[in-house]
Amino acid sequence: MTTGERPFGGFPAVSARDAVRALRPSRIREVANAGMGLDDVLPFWFGESDQATPQFIVDAAGRALRDGATFYTHNLGIAPLREAVAGYVSRLHGATRADNIAITSGGVSALMLATQLLAGPGDRVVAVTPLWPNLVEMPKILGAHVETVSLGYGAEGWTLDTEKLFAALTPGTKLLLINSPNNPTGWTLSAKEQRLLLDHCRQRDIWIVADEVYERLCYSEDGPAVAPSFLDAADREEKVICVNSFSKSWVMTGWRLGWLVAPASLMDDMSKLIEYNTSCAPSFVQQAGITAVKEGDAFVRDFVAGLKDSRDHLVRGLAALPGIDVKAPPGAMYLFFSMPGAEDSLSLCKALVRDAGLGLAPGVAFGPEGEGFVRWCYACDTARLDEGLRRLRGYLAR
Amino acid sequence: MTTGERPFGGFPAVSARDAVRALRPSRIREVANAGMGLDDVLPFWFGESDQATPQFIVDAAGRALRDGATFYTHNLGIAPLREAVAGYVSRLHGATRADNIAITSGGVSALMLATQLLAGPGDRVVAVTPLWPNLVEMPKILGAHVETVSLGYGAEGWTLDTEKLFAALTPGTKLLLINSPNNPTGWTLSAKEQRLLLDHCRQRDIWIVADEVYERLCYSEDGPAVAPSFLDAADREEKVICVNSFSKSWVMTGWRLGWLVAPASLMDDMSKLIEYNTSCAPSFVQQAGITAVKEGDAFVRDFVAGLKDSRDHLVRGLAALPGIDVKAPPGAMYLFFSMPGAEDSLSLCKALVRDAGLGLAPGVAFGPEGEGFVRWCYACDTARLDEGLRRLRGYLAR
Repeated sequence: MTTGERPFGGFPAVSARDAVRALRPSRIREVANAGMGLDDVLPFWFGESDQATPQFIVDAAGRALRDGATFYTHNLGIAPLREAVAGYVSRLHGATRADNIAITSGGVSALMLATQLLAGPGDRVVAVTPLWPNLVEMPKILGAHVETVSLGYGAEGWTLDTEKLFAALTPGTKLLLINSPNNPTGWTLSAKEQRLLLDHCRQRDIWIVADEVYERLCYSEDGPAVAPSFLDAADREEKVICVNSFSKSWVMTGWRLGWLVAPASLMDDMSKLIEYNTSCAPSFVQQAGITAVKEGDAFVRDFVAGLKDSRDHLVRGLAALPGIDVKAPPGAMYLFFSMPGAEDSLSLCKALVRDAGLGLAPGVAFGPEGEGFVRWCYACDTARLDEGLRRLRGYLAR
Repeated sequence: MTTGERPFGGFPAVSARDAVRALRPSRIREVANAGMGLDDVLPFWFGESDQATPQFIVDAAGRALRDGATFYTHNLGIAPLREAVAGYVSRLHGATRADNIAITSGGVSALMLATQLLAGPGDRVVAVTPLWPNLVEMPKILGAHVETVSLGYGAEGWTLDTEKLFAALTPGTKLLLINSPNNPTGWTLSAKEQRLLLDHCRQRDIWIVADEVYERLCYSEDGPAVAPSFLDAADREEKVICVNSFSKSWVMTGWRLGWLVAPASLMDDMSKLIEYNTSCAPSFVQQAGITAVKEGDAFVRDFVAGLKDSRDHLVRGLAALPGIDVKAPPGAMYLFFSMPGAEDSLSLCKALVRDAGLGLAPGVAFGPEGEGFVRWCYACDTARLDEGLRRLRGYLAR
């Protein structure tokens, strides 16, 4: 703008600082906007189940509210929740103390806190992509530089070339950001790959910040009901921070409750950062979290079984359509597939919502490496998926 | 540490980056820790009422939960809450559109978002002190430099030397952080001072970020029931961001719900930052916020009347004690007063909690300018204040 320009009420136009203006806006939001005002859109674009939170968790929040749990809590979370989460993590991934747990205002906040703790101006961060945008953008808010290493796509679906990643993880790199099971691809690190990465990063003094919020959404036929975690192999006091959330396992997206597992020696500094970011997660929400962790096992088992059915149903339906290349990924709750027109995934998704009432997320929303693909969240019942498939079939037949 | 040192499980000691380690830890927490394990401590150290949230707001959250408000919301908040807040702000401070409102995960998060939006590495930020620590520390997380300008203390209580502040607000300064009514002093900017500051900052292209969360806790005998706000004089599209919260006016500290008023042209960038910080405030918490704003007037009136009684009661009680210099401030919910021993306020407050079971906040917690004072939050009934006064009298008589 020129200095004399006064578009708003006679005052010069204002703007955020350059680093913030350069952050990627949501391409999913851009597609959703294209469907604004249309009555009949089936949205499969967000990373969210179409179920509301289970009643036993809702009831726990109601009880806590009635009991007056409306005050500030400790920055790191209420002690019973930190202990419950430590017990849960210990059961899944080996001995973990409450001192290693910080409760956060969602998994997103946990990732932002870990980033603030470790990444400052000029620091080098490496991220594995395609990837939901938040992880790649957060370090840029702090003035850090993010280099991306792309997964490969082939006959076996999405795979990691560990040598390629090692080459990027040079000495002086501050931290590796990695999300497995992965949003959007469903790609899931093996335990062996995690140990190799851990060794490499140990030797080069590089932090690992792992986004493991989909760890329970894991569909191996005979394996454990939880994805491999860096916590399985890492010492609790080494340079590893694992982020988790109540959103996906217990269908609590709208509650904004998460946690991170980190060295106990970092918790004083983490406590300060939580104070300066959100102070604490809401008190009664934390109380409901205790119930989710302690009484939620049967729910998670059934929920994940349903997701697996939905995944397989959608894979079969998509595979029967012309020009679609789709594979069943081992984790998360998305299919990330190629189809005619997806070489410009943003235009394709806008056309799908406008012309077919079908809401998918464009692959390019997850980085340039995602171009050529679209993402379909299958966290709903098969009848809804069938209606989506019907619309897609109609679109392709035009 | 030396490289060979392995204090935790055989791994080298880890640490946060220097800028985070240098952030001030809470001196209030340090005092509270000194009282850990003691049965009978009367805590007046936190900025929180001893009342739970009013029932009509709790009920609204319960209804929203039962209605399934457990999903993600728009980053900027649900439309009915943005509209309700815009209506509320319009009523208090002149025409304001929902486009000017962003809903946040508490006032703290709103302040952090405003800071992230505007202050990057190397930027110069000016803050008026004494001040609760968060505002001064947030810019440092982003790599900005914070210069402080101290209020003066004299016969009229705490006052601002505007010329001194103007001298610090040099061209090239990125933003002014100012909190009025002020925590900890209760000092409150006059409308005239706000207009002077606004003019000065306009001419030098400096942002004003105003923390106005105590605006309803305002005790002028004949004046309005709301403190002067920068919103009264500022255009909504100029370089002013005003932060507010549900915590103090509607006793919702543990809910973590706040908002900011900012130029509409910034909201796309603000939306990205909210996505990357917390994604959104909890859905049912936002629903309860609508009820607070729309149906909370009578509650706020009674609550503030009670606070005024408590303030006057405590001022009278303290003034009767030897060596205490106390004045009734026009806003907020604290008395910030000098007393024997307060020249080392941290040691004094530790002694008070250990020896008298009286929990006050040390003035030094609010910056070096606060040394020599202690803070007492009077948001409780007079019986509780009387017991605190009795303990203080006993301590002073030793």
